[in-house]
Amino acid sequence: MAKQAKTAIQPTRSEDFPEWYQQVIKGADLAENSETRGCMIIKPWGYALWENIQQQLDKYFKQTGHQNAYFPLLIPLSHFEKEAECAEGFATECAVVTHHRLEAIKQDDGTTKMEPAGKLTEPYVIRPTSETIIGAAFSRWTESYRDLPLLINQWANVMRWEMRTRMFLRTAEFLWQEGHTAHETKQEALDETRQMHAIYEKFLREHLAIPTIPGEKSEAERFPGADMTLTVEAMVQDKKAIQAGTSHFLGQNFSKVQDISFTGRDGSTQHAWTTSWGVSTRLIGTLIMAHSDDDGLIMPPRVASQQIVIIPVTPKEDTRDAVIDACEALAQTLRSKDFHGEPLRVLVDKRDIRGKKWEWVKKGAPIRIEIGPRDLESRKVCLQRRDQPSNEKAFLAKEEFLQNVESTLQEIQDTLLERAATFRDANTQDCSDPATFEKHWSCESPGWLVTPWAGTTEEEETLSKKHKIAIRCLPLDQQDGEESPCILTGKPTKTRAIWGRSY
Amino acid sequence: MAKQAKTAIQPTRSEDFPEWYQQVIKGADLAENSETRGCMIIKPWGYALWENIQQQLDKYFKQTGHQNAYFPLLIPLSHFEKEAECAEGFATECAVVTHHRLEAIKQDDGTTKMEPAGKLTEPYVIRPTSETIIGAAFSRWTESYRDLPLLINQWANVMRWEMRTRMFLRTAEFLWQEGHTAHETKQEALDETRQMHAIYEKFLREHLAIPTIPGEKSEAERFPGADMTLTVEAMVQDKKAIQAGTSHFLGQNFSKVQDISFTGRDGSTQHAWTTSWGVSTRLIGTLIMAHSDDDGLIMPPRVASQQIVIIPVTPKEDTRDAVIDACEALAQTLRSKDFHGEPLRVLVDKRDIRGKKWEWVKKGAPIRIEIGPRDLESRKVCLQRRDQPSNEKAFLAKEEFLQNVESTLQEIQDTLLERAATFRDANTQDCSDPATFEKHWSCESPGWLVTPWAGTTEEEETLSKKHKIAIRCLPLDQQDGEESPCILTGKPTKTRAIWGRSY
Repeated sequence: MAKQAKTAIQPTRSEDFPEWYQQVIKGADLAENSETRGCMIIKPWGYALWENIQQQLDKYFKQTGHQNAYFPLLIPLSHFEKEAECAEGFATECAVVTHHRLEAIKQDDGTTKMEPAGKLTEPYVIRPTSETIIGAAFSRWTESYRDLPLLINQWANVMRWEMRTRMFLRTAEFLWQEGHTAHETKQEALDETRQMHAIYEKFLREHLAIPTIPGEKSEAERFPGADMTLTVEAMVQDKKAIQAGTSHFLGQNFSKVQDISFTGRDGSTQHAWTTSWGVSTRLIGTLIMAHSDDDGLIMPPRVASQQIVIIPVTPKEDTRDAVIDACEALAQTLRSKDFHGEPLRVLVDKRDIRGKKWEWVKKGAPIRIEIGPRDLESRKVCLQRRDQPSNEKAFLAKEEFLQNVESTLQEIQDTLLERAATFRDANTQDCSDPATFEKHWSCESPGWLVTPWAGTTEEEETLSKKHKIAIRCLPLDQQDGEESPCILTGKPTKTRAIWGRSY
Repeated sequence: MAKQAKTAIQPTRSEDFPEWYQQVIKGADLAENSETRGCMIIKPWGYALWENIQQQLDKYFKQTGHQNAYFPLLIPLSHFEKEAECAEGFATECAVVTHHRLEAIKQDDGTTKMEPAGKLTEPYVIRPTSETIIGAAFSRWTESYRDLPLLINQWANVMRWEMRTRMFLRTAEFLWQEGHTAHETKQEALDETRQMHAIYEKFLREHLAIPTIPGEKSEAERFPGADMTLTVEAMVQDKKAIQAGTSHFLGQNFSKVQDISFTGRDGSTQHAWTTSWGVSTRLIGTLIMAHSDDDGLIMPPRVASQQIVIIPVTPKEDTRDAVIDACEALAQTLRSKDFHGEPLRVLVDKRDIRGKKWEWVKKGAPIRIEIGPRDLESRKVCLQRRDQPSNEKAFLAKEEFLQNVESTLQEIQDTLLERAATFRDANTQDCSDPATFEKHWSCESPGWLVTPWAGTTEEEETLSKKHKIAIRCLPLDQQDGEESPCILTGKPTKTRAIWGRSY
């Protein structure tokens, strides 16, 4: 093996951010590309992250009255067409099923080859999202106002045939949850849209240690068919934005097309007000880009695949068993402790190989503990934190470590959030001067600009194209300040827009 | 609404078992058919069952060292072809993706219609099972014996384009888990195959209250490409068999085709020994058919969507709030209690509608509690158990109910298991007389026969076809008794086979 380089990941973030990202994923063994175009394999260390995200989010969904269900993967083409705006939005990136069996066909060279057979009278589309098929079900389930609200969530795989893919951030197939709800009144649907948006913001902040700007999408950036799209926008370390989750108020647009109607309290027939909201495995990509460093992955403790890795140091055969026993005993004690209501996730790495320590650095375990023969007598442990430089060690009495382990994990969690917030704030500037705005986008890694905005959708699209940027959102908490002249049109406006490059 | 019939479900089991099954599903609101051919929508009450099954099984998988991962939905056709036996097994029921976008095509009448466009150079098959794609990954992951064993599980949707479908038991798309493992030695792989088989048997018995016959499949009934298939066979109330789970020892068959090879301890290149094992949403169909009665679904408490439903009885407006408060308070107390390590699942049904009670009978909640105004003073509750006749009630002091609730749930669980075992045993007969064997299958609902068997695969298939039966398994615990003459060939044999009709 090559000599340990200065950094465990090559290239570094500043040398080549996109390649650094791929190497962090590889070094942490989170995922790999597969033989299926644009689709990745999520390996155990990456999937464990997803399982934690899933379980923790699911709790919030259930606490707010939602129930999980499962709808078909395949959507009949005719269904999909009905919802014209939505179909158009996804038409260029749909996997289409046209046949329902294979037939062995004899080739000229005498061999046989399997070919599609049994052509379907109506093709099916693999769901890029499930509004249409869930809407059809909602239409059947809704007769009276008493049947509302419908509060449904689905954990599923979806497919969008993207041309350029990047692991976790944009893959042809990805895992996600999609919430779909139907309500009696506009107000209830608006409240639901905002509630789920707030849950996403809280989840990203408290669980993933990612501060986001909660805001509304401009008309140009809205979900096809939505009246309002709320988004949580994260900044990652190359100062680009990632749309980490969205919550859509669909008005009566979908319910009218799909006839989600009901007999109201006054006996009249009314259309329901619907919402949809989702986050995906993209959260993992966001987490990697937000926190990791030139030594590899850094995972926030709350969602970490394992929170503590214990490494027995066993230079001599005769003390080996005793050291390993001590490590296992410590792990058992730790597993009986809780962090945010879940038992601590602890792994003892008993493998007899070199380079173990760097492996766990690259894999981003929040706490690494080493125990060697001498520590048995002194009852000490050597603690290393992934949020601190890799050569920093603390030797602690075992009891002291055990007493403080939850607060140490929380400290790491808080440090990551604080760092990300500081970075984001340092790279977000108010800008009301058109010349400064123009110039800002010429550098390689421009941060975000917050500007007064009163342009039309067309003007926004022209500006976006010119600088390869977009309005990430109209931040919710900045829409009622003083009027200033729009950065483009000069019209006085209270609206503030955040501009940036994005994934 | 029609007057309450003698039974809540029409027709009854004895009148028309298949239709009774559909009506139980409908009455319990577990699932419904969708617009996608052969695919169902799993509704919240049904999906909650699946979530409980999933979480409880997942614990067993993790306890035995398995890790979850996720592999692509789409398998390149060329991959699929490689594993010839497996491809043949599924070729007649594959959904094939041939295009990657839609195009709006102008029709003669001026309208536009979406049509498949962007033909793929290589079609993809939606996974009917993932041996091929996981095998390709295993091939990359295995260099040295140190990389083994690989112990991977995947929770996913799969698709088999079945011609005749039946909700939960046979649907085109279904949810399942598929375990895939690779080992250094044959013995380890055999041990793994048996370990997972034993976990399925235990899970069905202890969690689903379904006794199964653990056994080996005959060659004719094996998974395509397997050297040995172990199965858990359940008997349901029309005396048919359901294959509820299988565990396959794949020998080196798949590893040779897919080159899952490694450098062994002696430096030589060797092929890994692999296994695969799975259960699916079919478990829910099995559960319904095994336990439910003419009043609807009966759910075993351990996996029940809700274990206890509390129904406030509020005839008068002035005591309504007090009754509901008492119900909520009771629910809170119950939720702080555990049943097999999980907090009790309790629902308070506050809806102000008629027919609530029968709804919960049909939905199969193990315990129903009613509390009315008079019970507030007397501190009593009215308890009804779903395993007892629907008119049977017990009036208990609230404290007594609370003290015994876990044991009551366990009693219900045990009763269901005992009933199913008694039924199965009463309908399974030893048979060594060919004439009796022939005659047995002429009745409408024949049970199982256990016979001495020494026939060939061909003879087995002829016999199976003649009587519309199959060897369900060669039961593991009956293969070392005395020799008796084979039911067909008369050859002396120790082998015992269980014959029956099946779903």
